[in-house]
Amino acid sequence: MKPDLSCFFEPKGIAVVGATPDERKGGYRLLKNVALGYSGTIYPVNPKHTEVLGIKAYPSVFAIDGPADLALIFVPAEHTPKTLMECASKGFKGAILENSGFAEVGGEGKALQDDCVAIAREGGMRLWGPNCMGLIDVRKRHVFSFMPPVFREGILTEGGISLIVQSGLLSAGLLLTIMSLKSLGLAKVCSIGNKSDLTEIDLLEFLLDDPDTTVIALYLESFSNGRRFFDLARSSTKPIALLKGGKSAAGAKASLSHTGSLAGNYQVVHGALKQAGVVEAHDFFEMMDAAQVLEMGFEGGSRTSVPGRVAILTFSGASGIVTADYLEQYGLDLARLSPSTIIQLQHLSPDWMPVANPVDFWPAVEKHGPVVAYREGLSALYADPNVDGVIIHLFTGGSVWGFDPVELMAGIKDRKKPVFTLLFGPKDEVEQGRRRMESEGWPVFHEVQRLVKVMSLLL
Amino acid sequence: MKPDLSCFFEPKGIAVVGATPDERKGGYRLLKNVALGYSGTIYPVNPKHTEVLGIKAYPSVFAIDGPADLALIFVPAEHTPKTLMECASKGFKGAILENSGFAEVGGEGKALQDDCVAIAREGGMRLWGPNCMGLIDVRKRHVFSFMPPVFREGILTEGGISLIVQSGLLSAGLLLTIMSLKSLGLAKVCSIGNKSDLTEIDLLEFLLDDPDTTVIALYLESFSNGRRFFDLARSSTKPIALLKGGKSAAGAKASLSHTGSLAGNYQVVHGALKQAGVVEAHDFFEMMDAAQVLEMGFEGGSRTSVPGRVAILTFSGASGIVTADYLEQYGLDLARLSPSTIIQLQHLSPDWMPVANPVDFWPAVEKHGPVVAYREGLSALYADPNVDGVIIHLFTGGSVWGFDPVELMAGIKDRKKPVFTLLFGPKDEVEQGRRRMESEGWPVFHEVQRLVKVMSLLL
Repeated sequence: MKPDLSCFFEPKGIAVVGATPDERKGGYRLLKNVALGYSGTIYPVNPKHTEVLGIKAYPSVFAIDGPADLALIFVPAEHTPKTLMECASKGFKGAILENSGFAEVGGEGKALQDDCVAIAREGGMRLWGPNCMGLIDVRKRHVFSFMPPVFREGILTEGGISLIVQSGLLSAGLLLTIMSLKSLGLAKVCSIGNKSDLTEIDLLEFLLDDPDTTVIALYLESFSNGRRFFDLARSSTKPIALLKGGKSAAGAKASLSHTGSLAGNYQVVHGALKQAGVVEAHDFFEMMDAAQVLEMGFEGGSRTSVPGRVAILTFSGASGIVTADYLEQYGLDLARLSPSTIIQLQHLSPDWMPVANPVDFWPAVEKHGPVVAYREGLSALYADPNVDGVIIHLFTGGSVWGFDPVELMAGIKDRKKPVFTLLFGPKDEVEQGRRRMESEGWPVFHEVQRLVKVMSLLL
Repeated sequence: MKPDLSCFFEPKGIAVVGATPDERKGGYRLLKNVALGYSGTIYPVNPKHTEVLGIKAYPSVFAIDGPADLALIFVPAEHTPKTLMECASKGFKGAILENSGFAEVGGEGKALQDDCVAIAREGGMRLWGPNCMGLIDVRKRHVFSFMPPVFREGILTEGGISLIVQSGLLSAGLLLTIMSLKSLGLAKVCSIGNKSDLTEIDLLEFLLDDPDTTVIALYLESFSNGRRFFDLARSSTKPIALLKGGKSAAGAKASLSHTGSLAGNYQVVHGALKQAGVVEAHDFFEMMDAAQVLEMGFEGGSRTSVPGRVAILTFSGASGIVTADYLEQYGLDLARLSPSTIIQLQHLSPDWMPVANPVDFWPAVEKHGPVVAYREGLSALYADPNVDGVIIHLFTGGSVWGFDPVELMAGIKDRKKPVFTLLFGPKDEVEQGRRRMESEGWPVFHEVQRLVKVMSLLL
């Protein structure tokens, strides 16, 4: 039976324990975020105040006089057990512990965390956290997190990507950074911290059934139940991208003090992820790049070990060569083009320019203009059965050529093969071109290494 | 005896052969660029026009009636030998062939190129190119290139980095892209194409003596004289960064049709570069990243195989872990901090947060504010004899904290160890922070992989 997580995702009244009018504190930011988006009843709990942010406050959870099933807790770690006991006695169904000082600080903290779990289980509650940044539901505009409220607008862009992250600040600073650089849309963001009770398995099961979620991306430092995770991933119809923290010996040691996680043997994990069709990323940007291309409908998670065959369409011979060098580094092959493709491309190029892959198309661009040359060339490469993916190097039209980059893609009708574009040009024009391409579902990259790496994750 | 290249860098009159009023053509852009920056006499050569761009034109080089020692040639390949003969007979000292259709297109083109070299040598001229984009001298504002004139302002930022690139469009589109993303200053940009006569050796010798040049970065598909190159590099007092194109079998094959180059055995090259203290990059962005940090005075090109020991100062445990994972991937070690450093850092952190590397400094930031926490923490790490380089993860101050990122570096007085910052935050704030940091000589990166890789090039 799947766990009931409705108290987290559709709470019927929320207690914010540790809410405070002191703007420098997490308890202020937490309440502020909840108040900005949650339309049910909110109960700030703080014995020193009768109201916080204009909302009636309560001296304790006991004192709450209306319906509520979720507590958001931001009090000193040692006060947590008492708070949870009060929550349980009031019939709460769940609590998100956003405070720190538990398993991640070692012995005593671990004991404190175990106490909290025992209290919650006895009282029929689910615990989320501790040492986490809570939950964001973009469609509902719920931000149950102590992240700075000023970040909200940068993060609350609706889309199909849901995140499960075993980390604190990830859900604020880093995510905000990435969202400002890419056209990404989010569904749910779940920061699970030490996962004392609720784990990535519970949330993965929930998100696999969540109609708002089309792609799931995870940052994990440990697997709570590896076998179950891989079973879920293997049978998932939604694509999954994953970043494993603590792959190196040094990283693994650090993850012990970060979320109290034992990182495990990475090689085993790596093989299992591949078998399960999970797209494995190596840093947060790459994880979000992967999530984006998966959401755009490009298929990922090749389970075979046959190298993908890639065609490169470029205006710069040197860039083509450097890209080919990276293909080899990331285990991809430079495609051997079919004779019929070569004939089509040669038709577009002057006779003195023999066509090969990488396709150096500058002479064709000079002959036919960029729109015709790229559109026809790209269409031929995409249709080639010997090509599994296409890399395009494009100089943004703006100040030189003045075209809409999406026009160049007109010959491609589906998303069966990844077609990734590396955009060159002055920053502002590249930014404009990127937005335009991404709005039509075409992934854009700024650096060849990143592009090739993300393509290698799919092929 | 060093070659005399003064005709290229201080020409006494320039013939632009193939100059045309047709704005779509390279011969127009070439003349326009020369006219915008060169203050000597310019002689457009075109039998169909008596003036081009308001400058008196000549039907042939023969017809030129004033002093000139440099020809910029942009005519169909087959007309080049005749043009060179005329140049030689007029006493020209050098020609830059920016046209294509020579060795890069195979047999006949190679023969044509050989003819051109023979004519030039017989006539006492040096040949630059063919199949290149010529020369840019930023201080003099000379752009002897057919790149779009609209790119000029984006490229002509003066500084100490000189480039030698065996590629055409590199010097325009790609360089422009990079310059718009980073605070870079250039001295000379030399696009050498097929290097039929003038090679990277000639230019390297020239730039080693050039007072405007402090760092030299090269993109090469082949070495014209490997032994001489490595001798020059080994004895150079100016740092050198290099990107080798055609490392993979596929890339090597492509470089043959790009600039007619035989790429050679990469492993041999790689070892020799390391011995010579050359910083080896793997794509154009990385090459310019390396050039930038070298220009800022960070030392590069470790000749030892002892892994560099790196300290990480972060506000995000997860980012610290992912960074540690990358250190291992790029052959760097996570530093074991000295006891005295740990004591200093522990002093700044709350007791419940045991200090380790990566240094998760969020609790210290909460306790002391970002400026004090980072400045003191950074200063302790930098001074640690067990630390060879420091990586900082910083959330831009702007909307949350409001500080000047340069303040955080106040405890570091020299540039003996690389201190690289990864900036997080909304795009515009990151951009502002980046410019501020770079203006004071502190390198800033947007992605952890790139940061760690560039640090690995130095250590």
